[in-house]
Amino acid sequence: MNHPENDKAYKGLTVNEGVENLPSVNPYATFHRKKRQLSVDEYFEGIRRGDISILGQAVTLVESNLPADQLIAQQVIERCLPFAGGAIRLGITGVPGAGKSTFIEALGTELCHQGKHIAVLAIDPSSERSKGSILGDKTRMNELSTQANAFIRPSPSAGSLGGVARKTRETIVLCEAAGFDTILVETVGVGQSETAAHSMVDYFLLLQVTGTGDELQGIKRGIMEMADGIAINKCDGNNMERARAARVSYRNALALFPPSESGWKPDALCCSAVEHTGIAEVWKNVEDYVAFTRQNGYFERHRTEQAKYWMYETINAALLNGFYQNEHMELRIQQAEQQVLNNEISSFIAANQLLTEYKNGREN
Amino acid sequence: MNHPENDKAYKGLTVNEGVENLPSVNPYATFHRKKRQLSVDEYFEGIRRGDISILGQAVTLVESNLPADQLIAQQVIERCLPFAGGAIRLGITGVPGAGKSTFIEALGTELCHQGKHIAVLAIDPSSERSKGSILGDKTRMNELSTQANAFIRPSPSAGSLGGVARKTRETIVLCEAAGFDTILVETVGVGQSETAAHSMVDYFLLLQVTGTGDELQGIKRGIMEMADGIAINKCDGNNMERARAARVSYRNALALFPPSESGWKPDALCCSAVEHTGIAEVWKNVEDYVAFTRQNGYFERHRTEQAKYWMYETINAALLNGFYQNEHMELRIQQAEQQVLNNEISSFIAANQLLTEYKNGREN
Repeated sequence: MNHPENDKAYKGLTVNEGVENLPSVNPYATFHRKKRQLSVDEYFEGIRRGDISILGQAVTLVESNLPADQLIAQQVIERCLPFAGGAIRLGITGVPGAGKSTFIEALGTELCHQGKHIAVLAIDPSSERSKGSILGDKTRMNELSTQANAFIRPSPSAGSLGGVARKTRETIVLCEAAGFDTILVETVGVGQSETAAHSMVDYFLLLQVTGTGDELQGIKRGIMEMADGIAINKCDGNNMERARAARVSYRNALALFPPSESGWKPDALCCSAVEHTGIAEVWKNVEDYVAFTRQNGYFERHRTEQAKYWMYETINAALLNGFYQNEHMELRIQQAEQQVLNNEISSFIAANQLLTEYKNGREN
Repeated sequence: MNHPENDKAYKGLTVNEGVENLPSVNPYATFHRKKRQLSVDEYFEGIRRGDISILGQAVTLVESNLPADQLIAQQVIERCLPFAGGAIRLGITGVPGAGKSTFIEALGTELCHQGKHIAVLAIDPSSERSKGSILGDKTRMNELSTQANAFIRPSPSAGSLGGVARKTRETIVLCEAAGFDTILVETVGVGQSETAAHSMVDYFLLLQVTGTGDELQGIKRGIMEMADGIAINKCDGNNMERARAARVSYRNALALFPPSESGWKPDALCCSAVEHTGIAEVWKNVEDYVAFTRQNGYFERHRTEQAKYWMYETINAALLNGFYQNEHMELRIQQAEQQVLNNEISSFIAANQLLTEYKNGREN
């Protein structure tokens, strides 16, 4: 694959030029011993030979908001792209308390024992109110984090949802090029992160615990219908009977949902992450899904649709950022929003005023 | 309410100036006998005294894409705004074949008999593949369309979803100022229209028919969890038993859903639009919802949140349109999308290339 267009976007600026003009391109440089900045080639080759340390540094570049870092990151991604796409990408969401970390630890460890290479990523934009950070404390995954085959990366801790999600999607490319064959993407189940995660994974798993709606406060409506499968966790000890009853209820509910575009019929399964039971069945469901959708062509179609989605998402985010991150507009947007909330002005008039001011400001 | 800022947006252009400079501001003018263009005052006063003919003409202005029409339309809306907000706004969606038209006819007629004033609107953007147009054939609503208290308006037939939805929301303002106390907004249940409708109504009703998921092909996933209530239609004749069984299933499913932000617990009800049974119960559910959410403050909070949502939607649409409707970009966007779909180029590189070209084009 050859991308002659690629050069155009960065015309007149080679990688080294961009880097040398900045005092420090590594955001960790002030905390750690300053490392020599690697070249795009060095990043690429390090990633390709599975060097976890270099992969980690490349992900740090992807997560960086410095233009010079982004310049290198985009080129590394572009180099990696032809070697990406080989992994199964599994999204995992669930209400806080559903035991996502324990589940990922159990599933990841099991897959590592099978010889698989697992990368665990997360989408948890700080801009959303999330009850408890995810993957923030790597030490919670004691067992998985000691596996040589596992790469655990917490969510970038700052930025808009779109930005954070884009970085996670780019990190998937790097991980796949580094040889990881299974990508687990965790989200918190309370906001828009699920839509973003859904747009980058093959299979979207909802982790539930037993109980009625009231006990599930916090999870966003619509996620259940988005899921390719539901795993009812904590099916152990005294809770086993309730979990099994819940499974029947969820199966009945799933049967009422309209068929998904993939033709796949989501199922509800029981598992216990703590006791390591039912985990293999959940994974088998994922593998069945992959086989089923590969066979009917949905798998590939979905992947290319996702690529298209991200092209437009990236464009839209850039177009909107020009407005929302304009320092002159910030206060005016707040004022207009308040006027709308106070019913002093219509939504459309407010919008048109802001747009006119923005346009005039840009022309002056 | 006074909007001094309002003048600024239209500075230097009075209504008559804008109108006189254009050969025809009424898109119907070529088909019908050319009508004299009304002034903003005449529109406003006609709407306020409930003149259906003038209301219809004002809605035509709202739907028009001509800048001169939009200029007047926005001023009419602004004048009407202080008199809007008094109606109950009910969104109705359902799979094609669920009997939405018949249901709206039955509900609307019943409410007209109660002395209510009903406006029936629709969101059906032509850009979405919809199985069968909605409200396109007014004659299907034989009974309702003869009611003096009813105003039936098909969806604007062209434009993007955002544009069509915005026009519907503006039409709600005009209808409320004209004294309509009940607004029914119909959508087809197959796409993004539901999110748009959900963002402008107080209560969102999902009309279902009996059957398993397989029979509901076409409805978009996630809509069930969005609903404030489900009405199982065609509960009549041989179908009655199945409909009642379905009701139990839906109730069980609804109980599994997380609680909604409003605190309201959606229920599943049975009705027959053809036999006019159960319709009053569905309406009572809507009224109960309104009373419940008025009491806990959600009703008003939701309305102002919606106003805020539409301010940002309008801004975002305008910002994105500049890019997507740029004649120079159109072909390039298609090319880039194809390259992404062919895996020749990454989503992010494609997006950045297009943005760079757009920026350069704007600067030249």
